[in-house]
Amino acid sequence: MDYQELISEVYQEVNELDLRGKVADYIPELTKVSRNRFGIALIDLEGKVYGVGDYQVPFSIQSISKVFTLTMVFHKFRSKLWSRVNVEPSGNPFNSIAQLEYEKGVPRNPFVNPGALVITDALTSKFENPTQSIRDYIDELAGQHCVRINEEVMQSELQHAERNTAMAYFLKAYKNFDNDIPEVIRTYVYQCSIEMCCEELAKAFSYLANDGYSIFAKREILNESQSRRVNALMLTCGFYDESGEFAFRVGLPGKSGVGGGVAAIMPGKFSIAVWSPELNEKGNSVKAIKALELLTDKLKFSLF
Amino acid sequence: MDYQELISEVYQEVNELDLRGKVADYIPELTKVSRNRFGIALIDLEGKVYGVGDYQVPFSIQSISKVFTLTMVFHKFRSKLWSRVNVEPSGNPFNSIAQLEYEKGVPRNPFVNPGALVITDALTSKFENPTQSIRDYIDELAGQHCVRINEEVMQSELQHAERNTAMAYFLKAYKNFDNDIPEVIRTYVYQCSIEMCCEELAKAFSYLANDGYSIFAKREILNESQSRRVNALMLTCGFYDESGEFAFRVGLPGKSGVGGGVAAIMPGKFSIAVWSPELNEKGNSVKAIKALELLTDKLKFSLF
Amino acid sequence: MDYQELISEVYQEVNELDLRGKVADYIPELTKVSRNRFGIALIDLEGKVYGVGDYQVPFSIQSISKVFTLTMVFHKFRSKLWSRVNVEPSGNPFNSIAQLEYEKGVPRNPFVNPGALVITDALTSKFENPTQSIRDYIDELAGQHCVRINEEVMQSELQHAERNTAMAYFLKAYKNFDNDIPEVIRTYVYQCSIEMCCEELAKAFSYLANDGYSIFAKREILNESQSRRVNALMLTCGFYDESGEFAFRVGLPGKSGVGGGVAAIMPGKFSIAVWSPELNEKGNSVKAIKALELLTDKLKFSLF
Amino acid sequence: MDYQELISEVYQEVNELDLRGKVADYIPELTKVSRNRFGIALIDLEGKVYGVGDYQVPFSIQSISKVFTLTMVFHKFRSKLWSRVNVEPSGNPFNSIAQLEYEKGVPRNPFVNPGALVITDALTSKFENPTQSIRDYIDELAGQHCVRINEEVMQSELQHAERNTAMAYFLKAYKNFDNDIPEVIRTYVYQCSIEMCCEELAKAFSYLANDGYSIFAKREILNESQSRRVNALMLTCGFYDESGEFAFRVGLPGKSGVGGGVAAIMPGKFSIAVWSPELNEKGNSVKAIKALELLTDKLKFSLF
Repeated sequence: MDYQELISEVYQEVNELDLRGKVADYIPELTKVSRNRFGIALIDLEGKVYGVGDYQVPFSIQSISKVFTLTMVFHKFRSKLWSRVNVEPSGNPFNSIAQLEYEKGVPRNPFVNPGALVITDALTSKFENPTQSIRDYIDELAGQHCVRINEEVMQSELQHAERNTAMAYFLKAYKNFDNDIPEVIRTYVYQCSIEMCCEELAKAFSYLANDGYSIFAKREILNESQSRRVNALMLTCGFYDESGEFAFRVGLPGKSGVGGGVAAIMPGKFSIAVWSPELNEKGNSVKAIKALELLTDKLKFSLF
Repeated sequence: MDYQELISEVYQEVNELDLRGKVADYIPELTKVSRNRFGIALIDLEGKVYGVGDYQVPFSIQSISKVFTLTMVFHKFRSKLWSRVNVEPSGNPFNSIAQLEYEKGVPRNPFVNPGALVITDALTSKFENPTQSIRDYIDELAGQHCVRINEEVMQSELQHAERNTAMAYFLKAYKNFDNDIPEVIRTYVYQCSIEMCCEELAKAFSYLANDGYSIFAKREILNESQSRRVNALMLTCGFYDESGEFAFRVGLPGKSGVGGGVAAIMPGKFSIAVWSPELNEKGNSVKAIKALELLTDKLKFSLF
Repeated sequence: MDYQELISEVYQEVNELDLRGKVADYIPELTKVSRNRFGIALIDLEGKVYGVGDYQVPFSIQSISKVFTLTMVFHKFRSKLWSRVNVEPSGNPFNSIAQLEYEKGVPRNPFVNPGALVITDALTSKFENPTQSIRDYIDELAGQHCVRINEEVMQSELQHAERNTAMAYFLKAYKNFDNDIPEVIRTYVYQCSIEMCCEELAKAFSYLANDGYSIFAKREILNESQSRRVNALMLTCGFYDESGEFAFRVGLPGKSGVGGGVAAIMPGKFSIAVWSPELNEKGNSVKAIKALELLTDKLKFSLF
Repeated sequence: MDYQELISEVYQEVNELDLRGKVADYIPELTKVSRNRFGIALIDLEGKVYGVGDYQVPFSIQSISKVFTLTMVFHKFRSKLWSRVNVEPSGNPFNSIAQLEYEKGVPRNPFVNPGALVITDALTSKFENPTQSIRDYIDELAGQHCVRINEEVMQSELQHAERNTAMAYFLKAYKNFDNDIPEVIRTYVYQCSIEMCCEELAKAFSYLANDGYSIFAKREILNESQSRRVNALMLTCGFYDESGEFAFRVGLPGKSGVGGGVAAIMPGKFSIAVWSPELNEKGNSVKAIKALELLTDKLKFSLF
C-alpha cells in the first residue's frame, strides 16, 4: 500500500466534490480561518510521515484535545474513573444539559462537554500545573514541541463559557466536581485553544494505533487494554451525535473538533489527521469525514 | 491459538464467578428455561466448530434475529434503506417510543424495536412469504436445517404485542410503515420466536466475520462494504443502551437477545455465540458478556 | 350588564383586528370550512340566548366533546377515575406519546389525546351503546335535538387514526385500556365528528356555570364538587399547551377544539361558545381566544 | 360565614387525620423546625384577622417570596416581562434544567426556579438595593415591619446554590440574564430566607384578593388586570408539578414553599396562609393542602 498515493488520490477526489458546510461561528475567532483549507497527514507505525495539502498548517484542535486529557486521567485513575463518567454514546448534542439531569450528574461519556469537564476536573486533582502538564504531555506524544495556544481563541471562549460553566455547577450540584470551577473552566478552554497541524496531530495520536506505545515518546502511554478502550470510546462516541454514522461509513476510531479537524487511527497500521474548517450540521468537518470514508473504501479495510 | 482451550478456560472461569442476573420475564414462556444453562460455540473461517457446555441446546434467539432480517433487507434495498431508519446509537431502552416521537418516526437504528419493525415491514414488501423466507434464509446461512419456532413463545409474544403494535401504528402515522400491521407484527414475533443453539447461531453469523461471504451457504451474502456496515451497526447499537459498555469492555461487533444469547464476530478470524439466560438490568446476558470480555482479554486482540 | 351589547362589541372589535391563523388541515375535511366564519353565543343562567355572527351555524366540535364524555364517565366512576388519568397540565402537545411513556401509561389529564382515549374506554365499559349514549347525553344537556355527525369528517378521521390507535395500544401495554381498540377508536372519532352550533354548545355547557345543574336538562348532571372540578380541569388543561396563556389572558374555564370552537363558562353567570376556524400554532382559534379576552376585559371580571 | 369557626373546624379536622410527610431536608437548617407546627391565618377584605394554632410563629417562606418579587417586577416591566419568561405550567419539578434547554432559555413560568431567577435578575436591573427593596416592599404589603432573615438558612442555601447557579449561567448562555450571577443568586437566596408568620403572610397577600389594592399598604399595588393575571399564574403554576391537583382539589390561587407554608386567596373575599412543615413528595405541605381543601369544601365555594 502506497500511503502517499492513497492520500493524494483522496485529497483530489474530495476537492473535486466541492462539498460545502459552515465554518464554526460559536466563537468569533474561529470564523477567521479560510474555509478552503484542507490537509491530510498519515503516519505509519515506523513514524513515516505522508502529507498532502495544508497538512503543516496549524489549526484549533478544539475537542480533539479531549482524547489527550482523557488519556492523562485514565492513566492516573484507571477503572475508578468510570464511576464519574459513563462510556455510552449520547444520542444528544455534545453540549446538552438535559441528559445530565436525567442521569443524575454522571455524563454519558468523556467526549460530551459535561464528560470532558469531569475529565478536566479529575486532571486538576492530579496535576499541579494542569495547563503546563497538558502542553508537555502532547509535546511528548508528538515527539516535538508543537503545542501553541491561540490566545484570541482562548479569550473568546472564556467570554462565551456560560454554558460550560453552567454544566460545571450542575455537576457540582451532583457532587461530581471537586475543584474550583473557574480554574477548571480555564484549563478546559486552554486545551480547546491548542493549535496543531495535521502532521503533529497524527504523530500525537500514533500510540492509539500501536496498542498504547508511542514511537515518538518512546514509552508506553497506556497499556494495551486501556489503549483499546480509548479506541472503543472514540468509535462509539467520538463524533457527537453522528458517531454511529461515522462508524457506519468510515469504521475507524477517531475524534473530531469544531475547528474542522479529525484525528483517527487504524489499529496496527497508522494514525491520520485531516483538517478542513467547513462543518456539517452535527459539527463535523464535511471534507474530513468524506476523505476518511474514501480512504477506507480504497484501503478495502476498516475495523470491521 | 487453540480456540478449544480458550473457550474452555473462559467457560470455567465464568462459572467460577457465580454471576447472577434475572431471567427475562416479559413473556411467561421465557421464564421456563433453566437459569443455569451456559454454552459457547466458536467457528473459525474454515468452518471448524469449537464448543463447550450447552452449545448444542436450542434457545430463543429473540432480537439476535434482527441481524438476519436486516441483512435480507439491506441486500434488497441497499443504501435506500437508510431513509427509513438511522444508524445512530439510541441511548434509550430498546422499546422506547419517546425517541421515535422526537425524531418524527425515523427510528434510531435497525436494532431498537421500532427500527426492527421498519425492517420487518420492508421485508414484507419484498418477500412473498416472509416467515418462510426468514426461515429458509437462516437455514441457508447456517448450512443446515436448524430453525425451529417455539410456538408457546410465539403465542405468548403475540398476546403481549401491544407495545410493538403501538409502535407500528406510530410509524404508520409518520408514513414509515407500508404493510398490514397485524401481519408484520406476526412476522416480527415469528422471527423473535426462533430457536437455535450456539453452534447453529455461530455458523449463521460466520459471513459477517468473512467480509460477507458465507462458507456454509457457499455464496456472498452481502458485499464487503455492506458486511462491514452491519458490523459497525452491531458494534455501536447491538446491545441496547449498553452498547458503549460492550464496545468498551469487549470490543467485538455483536448482537444480544433477551433469551440470553449473544452472537459476535471477530473480523477475519471467527464467529462466536454464547448463551446463558440470566440477564443484567439492561437486558443482556451477564455470563455471555463476561465470557466475551474474558475471551478478548485472553486473545489480546479485539477490533481495537 | 347588557350581554347582547357586550358580545356585539367584542364581535366587531375582533373583526377589525383582522387576525389570521391556519385552518386545521390534519384531516382534509376540516379545510373545507370557510375561514371567515365567526360566531358567538352566550347563555345566562335563566337560559336567555344572546348571539352574534355565525352563532347558529354548525361546526365540528372536535375536542370540545371531551368535556361531555368526561362528565359522563366522572359521574359513573367518581373519584376512582383518577387512578387511570391524572389532573395535571401537560406542557406538551395534545397528541404527544413521549409523556405517556415517561409516566408509565397514566395520561396527564383527560383532555390530552391519551387521556381522552382512557375516558372513552371507561365510557365503553359502562354504556351499552356508547355512540348513541353520547349523542343522547349531549342532546339532553342542550335541551334539544342538536347533535349531528359529519360523516365525511368521521370517515376522514378514521382513515387518519394511526396515532390515536398507537396511543390506545400503548395504554393497553400499560394495562390502562380495557375494551376492543378499534371499537373505542370508532367511538372516539364519532364524538370528535359531532357538529353543533355556538348556541347549542353554550346551552350544553350551561350546567358547568351552574354548579352542575342543567336548566335545559332540568336535572343535576354533576354535583357541585364534581362540577367545580371539571371547571378546574378546563382551566388548567383545556387549551393544550396554551392553557396557562388562556388562564392568564382570559381567566375562564373552557375547552377548545381544532374545528375552531371554544366553549367556556363564568361560574354563576353564563356559558359561552365562540367559533372561528383559523387556528394559532397551538391549535386554538385565534379569533375565539381574542374574543374571550376582550370579553373578560370589558366585563371587568374573570375567575380571578 | 363565621371565618373563625370555619378555620377552627378545619384546624381540628386536619389534626385528627394525623397526616404525615417529610420535612424538607435539602438544606440542613430547614430540618430543625418542629414537625408538629400547624397554623392558619385568614384575613378578610376589611383587614380582620382570624387565626388558629401557630399562626403567629415565623417560618421560612421560601418560594412564597416569588409572588412578591414577581409583583415588583411585573409592575415595572408590565407585559414586556413575558418575552423573558412564559406563563405555562411546567409539568416538571421546579428545579429542572432540561425543560429550559428544550425551550431555549425561556423558563416555563415565574415560579419554577429558572423563572424566579429571571425575575430576580430583572428586579436587580430596576432596584438599586435589591434586598432592601424586597424587605421594604413586603413590609409595606403587610402594613407592618415583619420581614426577618434567617441567617443560618441563608448561609446554608448559599452553600448549596450550585444548581441555581448552574441555571443562572445557562440562562446567561441564552442571553436571558443581565446582571452579575453571584449577586443575583445572593438576592434570590435572601428572598427565600425570609421568615414571616401566617398572619403577616396573609396580610401581605391581601392585595391579590382585592383586585390589586392593598388595604394595609393603602395603595394600588397592581392594577386589576395585573392582579388577576398573578392569580391566574398562581392557580396554574403555584404548586410545582402538583398545580393541577391543587386547582382540582382546592380551586384557589396560591403559592407554596418548601418551608411548609401556603398562601392563597379567594378573590373578593379573603387571603389565607397555612403552615405546617411536613411535605408530600411534590414538596407541598400535606396539612396545609388538606386544610385548604376542607376549607373550600365547607365554604361551598371556590373559584369555580
